[in-house]
Amino acid sequence: MRPLARYLPVLDWGRGYSRETLGADLLAALIVTIMLVPQSLAYALLAGLPPEAGLYASIVPILLYAIFGSSRSLAVGPVAVVSLMTAAAVGKVAEAGTADYATAALTLAFLSGLILVALGLLRLGFLANFISHPVIAGFITASGLLIAASQLRHILGIEGGGHTLAEILAALAAEAGQVNLPTLTIGGAALGALFWMRRGLTPALRALGAGPRLADIAAKAAPVLVIAGTTGVVWAFDLSARGVAVVGAVPGSLPPFSTPGLSPELLAQLIGPAFLISVIGFVESISVAQTLAASRRQRVDPDQELIGLGAANIGAGFSGGFPVTGGFSRSVVNHDAGARTPAAGAFTALGLALAALYLTPLIHHLPKATLAATIIVAVLNLVDLSILRRAWRFSGADFLAVVVTMGLTLLVGVEAGVSAGVAASVLVHLYKTSRPHMAVVGRVPGTAHFRNVKRHRVETQPHLLSLRVDESLYFPNARFLEDRVAALVAERPELTDLVLVFSAVNEVDLSALESLETINTRLREAGLRLHLSEVKGPVMDRLRRSRFCEELTGRVFLSQGEAWEALRAPGVCALSEPTVGPHAVGQGR
Amino acid sequence: MRPLARYLPVLDWGRGYSRETLGADLLAALIVTIMLVPQSLAYALLAGLPPEAGLYASIVPILLYAIFGSSRSLAVGPVAVVSLMTAAAVGKVAEAGTADYATAALTLAFLSGLILVALGLLRLGFLANFISHPVIAGFITASGLLIAASQLRHILGIEGGGHTLAEILAALAAEAGQVNLPTLTIGGAALGALFWMRRGLTPALRALGAGPRLADIAAKAAPVLVIAGTTGVVWAFDLSARGVAVVGAVPGSLPPFSTPGLSPELLAQLIGPAFLISVIGFVESISVAQTLAASRRQRVDPDQELIGLGAANIGAGFSGGFPVTGGFSRSVVNHDAGARTPAAGAFTALGLALAALYLTPLIHHLPKATLAATIIVAVLNLVDLSILRRAWRFSGADFLAVVVTMGLTLLVGVEAGVSAGVAASVLVHLYKTSRPHMAVVGRVPGTAHFRNVKRHRVETQPHLLSLRVDESLYFPNARFLEDRVAALVAERPELTDLVLVFSAVNEVDLSALESLETINTRLREAGLRLHLSEVKGPVMDRLRRSRFCEELTGRVFLSQGEAWEALRAPGVCALSEPTVGPHAVGQGR
Repeated sequence: MRPLARYLPVLDWGRGYSRETLGADLLAALIVTIMLVPQSLAYALLAGLPPEAGLYASIVPILLYAIFGSSRSLAVGPVAVVSLMTAAAVGKVAEAGTADYATAALTLAFLSGLILVALGLLRLGFLANFISHPVIAGFITASGLLIAASQLRHILGIEGGGHTLAEILAALAAEAGQVNLPTLTIGGAALGALFWMRRGLTPALRALGAGPRLADIAAKAAPVLVIAGTTGVVWAFDLSARGVAVVGAVPGSLPPFSTPGLSPELLAQLIGPAFLISVIGFVESISVAQTLAASRRQRVDPDQELIGLGAANIGAGFSGGFPVTGGFSRSVVNHDAGARTPAAGAFTALGLALAALYLTPLIHHLPKATLAATIIVAVLNLVDLSILRRAWRFSGADFLAVVVTMGLTLLVGVEAGVSAGVAASVLVHLYKTSRPHMAVVGRVPGTAHFRNVKRHRVETQPHLLSLRVDESLYFPNARFLEDRVAALVAERPELTDLVLVFSAVNEVDLSALESLETINTRLREAGLRLHLSEVKGPVMDRLRRSRFCEELTGRVFLSQGEAWEALRAPGVCALSEPTVGPHAVGQGR
Repeated sequence: MRPLARYLPVLDWGRGYSRETLGADLLAALIVTIMLVPQSLAYALLAGLPPEAGLYASIVPILLYAIFGSSRSLAVGPVAVVSLMTAAAVGKVAEAGTADYATAALTLAFLSGLILVALGLLRLGFLANFISHPVIAGFITASGLLIAASQLRHILGIEGGGHTLAEILAALAAEAGQVNLPTLTIGGAALGALFWMRRGLTPALRALGAGPRLADIAAKAAPVLVIAGTTGVVWAFDLSARGVAVVGAVPGSLPPFSTPGLSPELLAQLIGPAFLISVIGFVESISVAQTLAASRRQRVDPDQELIGLGAANIGAGFSGGFPVTGGFSRSVVNHDAGARTPAAGAFTALGLALAALYLTPLIHHLPKATLAATIIVAVLNLVDLSILRRAWRFSGADFLAVVVTMGLTLLVGVEAGVSAGVAASVLVHLYKTSRPHMAVVGRVPGTAHFRNVKRHRVETQPHLLSLRVDESLYFPNARFLEDRVAALVAERPELTDLVLVFSAVNEVDLSALESLETINTRLREAGLRLHLSEVKGPVMDRLRRSRFCEELTGRVFLSQGEAWEALRAPGVCALSEPTVGPHAVGQGR
């Protein structure tokens, strides 16, 4: 790949572009455009912005991603979780519906873009890995529930409000008597129709004789019928006079040139949320991109993805949009509809630009309840409570991370939820590694294998203790090793030699080195020798940089078998009595 | 040990108390008392409190530690670093010299005591391990430099001030023209004499025929002569009239009953610093206690130490003191002077109580410059810049932790220094484990040992790739493993079997499990089988709780040797050409 093509993937795929590819890309673009129009309007509503902002946020960002992004089928634009995070962040600095609010959304997109590009250029994409699977799964599920709850007010035709689950439910309860029946009818019908289209339409079309691919694509495009239908009903019966909230007048225009607010106070208030939005958006987007790429044996470059998403967000900041990222459902549709190159994205942008120019008069009577129904159906698809059960079965640590993330997201807010989830994951990891598993090992008779005396019937020698350390040694557990060795030695007065088996020690830091030196000194004073065995190359290289090897009272053995033979006493070996059930034998070490 | 004695070690050692032990304890107490009087006054000065507070802080706390503490020779009282941290914390909430300042110091001691007792009862002593050796070494060294610099103003007889190194040096420079010559003479002489007593007095006494133990103890008690001498000179020549600052009138009294301030604002402001002071004080104290205990084959119980130190601090809060902990130099003196039980501490408390009652008129003319000299000599002993060199040689990560801790302690403050040091240690650890070492391994010909193909000349098979993962698999590195496997497989079109060697994998969390499932699925789609070998018992137990084992396309082998034999192809093996220097051969795995 030429150097420039490293940062401009368009130079790579653009050269081999054929007429056949063009046809495939155009078809995919048409389908995605039909699907994106209602979604874009809906997510703008979720973010607290006027509906046209959703269209604008889908045009320039898609074009920029087509130039800089590395995934062939990722579709970029407003998505539910990021729109929710935008509403939460911008809602803290400005009143919804004001010009300041829209400007703050532009600033958030711009900042988020800068952060993404910076992370990409500095090759810091691995930072996203710190958001563990349980945290992201818990966060997306909780966000989905929160978003669905927040949209109920549009279905019920009441004022509502609030950012946490408790606030949202309290606001709904307070206005329970003021439900607008025409709105509820429209919203309920839209909700039912959309749910059915998602689950039941494909089988129904198949039953009517449609091919599997056609049925699938038709089902994906069908929600536009709900949009058209409810809009028509509201217009025909003049339901806006009876309290059904509609989108109203939307200017027909290409995306405007807009400038993000850059006052220091605004930047300071938004930098934290922008960082979280960038990382969450990236995590969501990269997992979609990698899944799609793997199914066609293509590769995505995470650092290039950061640059692509960053460019898209900077573009959103200058074209009347708000933060965007790669969306799951639209990318899958794009991919399934046969998009071959990012040019499909460019054609989608063209379609949306035409919609923004000429279709806005048609959505004047589009009820907000329909948009809310679109959102609810989309986000309930994200809700996956099974993560709770899977994490519970797998480990307490992962379960804790899920529960903390979900709980704080629902009860305190999205930013608190993600941050606490990441913090909980890290703290649990530190806690676990601070009290590492260590096993006294003995020899499996007649072999050179050494296994835990508690799990296997193995040979031991009274004067020789072999302790396998099942963790890297570093500051949180350095003193733990000192304590453990002191306790083991205190129980065994006949001991003369201690071997630390380092087969699972991948690192030794300075704190652990000092603990090893302390152990060596204390054992020497008590008349014992300290040996090491199975030390890995990188750890040994490290130990050689200190005086530990010179001061060591015993030896460093290449293998534990060598240590066993070299330190063997003339007497007989004893056989250990395993104390842990036999299920472990054969697999346990 | 009886259950009650678990929390009251005094019941353990108190029952075997003999006349001989009494004699040893009394002698040690006398020597420590002589040493503690000037130190206590000096550290009160350092904490910004009236001199008698230093004496009070050494009386009740010592008695309470004697009852609850587990170390036989730890001497508790004001120490340099904790006094500095007290000054930094209390200086933020009250003006030095006011009644509010003294009350805040009591509150700090009380809060710190509560925190220590709580940590002890909850057995959370391991939290102290998160302050790594490099961080604590860097912090103590930087604090020592900061304290020494802060005391220069008393030696020079100027106003001075400031909390960071830059502020302190700027204040000294601003008043360079106002140095008080009589003060500088007294201070300089005291400094010189004290330095000589520390280094040169023991050899001199030995040369004069004194026994080694006597010489050593006399040298430790000698600083009281400097106190007496400079006080006498100031009194005789009425130097306070010539600008030499003296301690002044000190009430002769037993420790008063005092009550810490408990207003919510004060508690909120001091809880953070109190936590840091508790942890730092505990880390300092426990390492002294463990070192002394090890030299006599005794053990200290870290959780009981927390309770002992907590009781001492609560006592300090109710008896006119300020935060205390186990001090290095006084404990060593106590130990070397032959203290056998904590009763020595009780006798020291008695001695200090007599001093507080009857000796205060004698210190009216004690120059502050002498106290400052006492502090400087004590803290420069703590300064150990060699940690920089040792950490640099050992690893970049440890060096970074030292530099961050020292830099922030000197330039921003003690609390920022420790916090940033701990944060840097944790972040560096996470960063390192997020890109783990992995090695393609082959068989050492004719053995069942498998080693890195880059370090050793080993056999490999073209259709079989064995990848040893040298790190626990968890969320920060889960995706890294996916990427690495994808890259290795893409390079080798003839590959049919991949074995992940798990000998160094101590943990697999849910994120890593999902990555393993992803790898298994992707390899299956590409026509490859995935196997595991050398999986540890606890990791296997964990994997069994998911469906991974059922979905695995290959097998789980007990040893890598078994995997090699079971997957062997009929053809010949190739020998690898090591690319890393031979220094690693023989030690590297």
